Amino acid sequence: MQHHQETPHSTGQTLGIRMAATQNGGSGDAGHHSQKDGVSSKKTLTLDTMNPHIKVMEYAVRGPLVIRAGEIEAMLKKKMDKPLPFTEVIRANIGDCHAMGQVPITFIRQVLCLCFNPELFESPDFASDVKDRARRILASCQGKSVGSYTDSTGLEVVRRDVAEFITNRDGGIPSSPENIILTAGASEGIKAMLKLMNFEREGKPPGVMVPIPQYPLYSATIAEYGMEQVGYFLDEDNNWALDISDLKRAVNEARKTSNPSVIVVINPGNPTGQVLTEENIREIIRFAYEEGLFIMADEVYQDNVYAHGSKFHSFKKVMTEMGSPYSEMEIASFYSTSKGFMGECGIRGGFMEVCNLDPPVMAMLKKMLSAKLCPTTAGQACIDTVVNPPKEGEPSYESFMSEKKAVLTSLAERAKMITQAFNLIPGIHCNDVQGAMYAFPRLDLPHKFVEEAKIKKREPDFYYALELLENTGICIVPGSGFGQRPGTYHFRTTILPPPERLKSMMERFTAFHTKLMEKYK
Amino acid sequence: MQHHQETPHSTGQTLGIRMAATQNGGSGDAGHHSQKDGVSSKKTLTLDTMNPHIKVMEYAVRGPLVIRAGEIEAMLKKKMDKPLPFTEVIRANIGDCHAMGQVPITFIRQVLCLCFNPELFESPDFASDVKDRARRILASCQGKSVGSYTDSTGLEVVRRDVAEFITNRDGGIPSSPENIILTAGASEGIKAMLKLMNFEREGKPPGVMVPIPQYPLYSATIAEYGMEQVGYFLDEDNNWALDISDLKRAVNEARKTSNPSVIVVINPGNPTGQVLTEENIREIIRFAYEEGLFIMADEVYQDNVYAHGSKFHSFKKVMTEMGSPYSEMEIASFYSTSKGFMGECGIRGGFMEVCNLDPPVMAMLKKMLSAKLCPTTAGQACIDTVVNPPKEGEPSYESFMSEKKAVLTSLAERAKMITQAFNLIPGIHCNDVQGAMYAFPRLDLPHKFVEEAKIKKREPDFYYALELLENTGICIVPGSGFGQRPGTYHFRTTILPPPERLKSMMERFTAFHTKLMEKYK
Repeated sequence: MQHHQETPHSTGQTLGIRMAATQNGGSGDAGHHSQKDGVSSKKTLTLDTMNPHIKVMEYAVRGPLVIRAGEIEAMLKKKMDKPLPFTEVIRANIGDCHAMGQVPITFIRQVLCLCFNPELFESPDFASDVKDRARRILASCQGKSVGSYTDSTGLEVVRRDVAEFITNRDGGIPSSPENIILTAGASEGIKAMLKLMNFEREGKPPGVMVPIPQYPLYSATIAEYGMEQVGYFLDEDNNWALDISDLKRAVNEARKTSNPSVIVVINPGNPTGQVLTEENIREIIRFAYEEGLFIMADEVYQDNVYAHGSKFHSFKKVMTEMGSPYSEMEIASFYSTSKGFMGECGIRGGFMEVCNLDPPVMAMLKKMLSAKLCPTTAGQACIDTVVNPPKEGEPSYESFMSEKKAVLTSLAERAKMITQAFNLIPGIHCNDVQGAMYAFPRLDLPHKFVEEAKIKKREPDFYYALELLENTGICIVPGSGFGQRPGTYHFRTTILPPPERLKSMMERFTAFHTKLMEKYK
Repeated sequence: MQHHQETPHSTGQTLGIRMAATQNGGSGDAGHHSQKDGVSSKKTLTLDTMNPHIKVMEYAVRGPLVIRAGEIEAMLKKKMDKPLPFTEVIRANIGDCHAMGQVPITFIRQVLCLCFNPELFESPDFASDVKDRARRILASCQGKSVGSYTDSTGLEVVRRDVAEFITNRDGGIPSSPENIILTAGASEGIKAMLKLMNFEREGKPPGVMVPIPQYPLYSATIAEYGMEQVGYFLDEDNNWALDISDLKRAVNEARKTSNPSVIVVINPGNPTGQVLTEENIREIIRFAYEEGLFIMADEVYQDNVYAHGSKFHSFKKVMTEMGSPYSEMEIASFYSTSKGFMGECGIRGGFMEVCNLDPPVMAMLKKMLSAKLCPTTAGQACIDTVVNPPKEGEPSYESFMSEKKAVLTSLAERAKMITQAFNLIPGIHCNDVQGAMYAFPRLDLPHKFVEEAKIKKREPDFYYALELLENTGICIVPGSGFGQRPGTYHFRTTILPPPERLKSMMERFTAFHTKLMEKYK
């Protein structure tokens, strides 16, 4: 009649991963259950007995600054004796288009609406192509209802449309519906592929090459799975291009402690906004081939290319055009309804295309996904409208195209505007935002400020972002959440606030930064 | 300029987990890339280099029989020279209500429809309570759009409604929105909790106590995470109740090779359909307390209780009413929109309530979930309509209640009908389906049949299910997919086919079984 007898402290401490959690609270020292008259609490699950990988994972895009932003928003809603020096929080921390006022694409929402409420098929409020599309999706659902489970990889009709979209995008290079897997956003696909590769061999974990800076889903997942992150530096002086010599350095160093098995490339870049040239992609593919690396191409921003002269080239297309042996390399590419021109983050739609996977491994991947049953039908229907938009001559064509163009044109303007505005601020350097939804400017922080941050036990760029939030209501993500060259400081901001708010944001930003530089000079 | 140098064969073979895959294909013997003129293919990711945990995981509900059922369906669609002895496949393998023709609840779908397409707020087709509900959900979304990300744990307004639902369900025992986490179905929550507990200590993995038979999400996840499954037998002779002496036997045996840390209880039962008595739940709670186990209460079928005298009691309620120290035990309970009276599987809505978790661990859980961004807004809106249905006097009240009642009444009738029909067949014994959506009858298979199955290297119950499918088009899941006492044979069938189809299914089943008994007697 005893509780479990382990002394779990040792492991956590040995691994050096005891959490400097902001929360206090019992951490397994006492027994299992609360004592009515005391404060200690015996718990089965404590910081010392829980999965240590989860303790070390971090996801800065939704980290402590965002929690603080929420608190400030709550304060703003209340009347206060001492009002804050701003009236609204600007959440520039996350690529959340609709939250920033972007209006949904009509066709997408109308199709979803009909899929969920087929009673409206008789309504005159919906154009014939909307009805046709919803009917087509419903016809492919078991029992003609989006309330039934679909195949674990998604509805066949949607996967066919995705394959056709890719084929057209890549100038006719074929894509097979059997290689398409629908997912909840891109994240689910990325996590599935990394999980599939998670195999410790000869005492070494798999190494995952990720760009520095990178999107923290990768670092978080690598930590969660106990894999090893192999960082390669993007070349800030060359508009965040990939530098092959640094890839080689990274992989060679990594072999000491891991089995490098996959390279992640984010194109267009997050947080960096670069769009890779075809030649750069070719070099990366050659490198991956030589090193025997699986390519994970995070191409969720493929519709978001703004800069003159920049163009999106899919890794699959470039690889295929390079011919054998490159055209037979294993690759997974990811896409999401959360980005692009639709920005449907909350619906959780996405897909991955997995090419040249060993067939028995593909069977294993599909088996693994089957235990999650299926991706949400709302996301699947949404993906379908995006990859198979209304065609010329169909009733919704004009509105779809003009709504799409309006979003992308405005984003392109904001990308330009934000780059220019940052570069006008002394001590801030911002590369061209060629694509995606972010700028990642470099901060030349005054020595005195850096010292003060260190005394306060904060990363200097975190401290900067916190001060910015407290003084202006602007919520950005510090560069340390993405990774950066040691001794440099950056931050990521989205380009998503609508033009007027973006202008006001840049004014507040400029005033804050100027004052800070003055104070700490 | 070399490919990776590992000889990965050894590990897979040592672990004894080389897959007897049905697919052929290169498994790492050759180099990285296909040779134009040969058949071998060098792959980075092969059965020998992939995550070994994924190889061993199985999910029978969507296993090879279901794949075969899909092939047969495709054959039925084509004209054949030699027609099959049946005209349709009955997918009795999965609890997929809408696939079986169940009609969605109007209120749920109308609210979802308005959430996706707010242009319809002016339409006279929607009642005021539908509009109010959609407005309330949208008002809580950033930018008033379901296309924006929500909190990682879900919209606050929905979590509040869930907490109120639980409070009312449990006779006033309070529930806090802070303890509610919205998920994609129940599966996501179950996987998250198991992941949180996955910590090898003193060289032993955590042990997860699961019922035998169990829902294969548990065995699949335990395999995927490398945890240890600790099976305890449900008592078939006592209508699948939990037998505390067997729990004790199981946990004691398990301590040799694992650290038992959690007990999973499925109530109402899947695949067994039992509804636990309050006294049985109390015994289980006492056992969990004594053994220091975290309780995972899979209560997704709580709305599906049919038998006279049976009543759903939540583990949290019973535990709380038992008072200290039991009332302070750690527990997670799971709920899903896929089951109950709504059966909205494809939408992927669900929630878990996590009580008495150590606060820093709760923070870690929420941090872990934040990297997945958020559950789908469609699922969140769906959950809201289910936990906060129209109230008496509101325009949609009558239709909601009558639609709900119609579904549950019909399910209760089918539960009774299927039990009676199976018990009329010689060699089949079926316990009362008190709740959930399944029957789990025992098969007394003839010795000759068992021998033939063994010669064909099939589990006897798998062989039976395959023969049934090929001869009648009825797709069930063999008991070996859930676990059963050695030497016994079972299968799971849903009770979901509509009455007429169910009747026809039972006739085909009876004929098949009678013929089989005759042939192998």
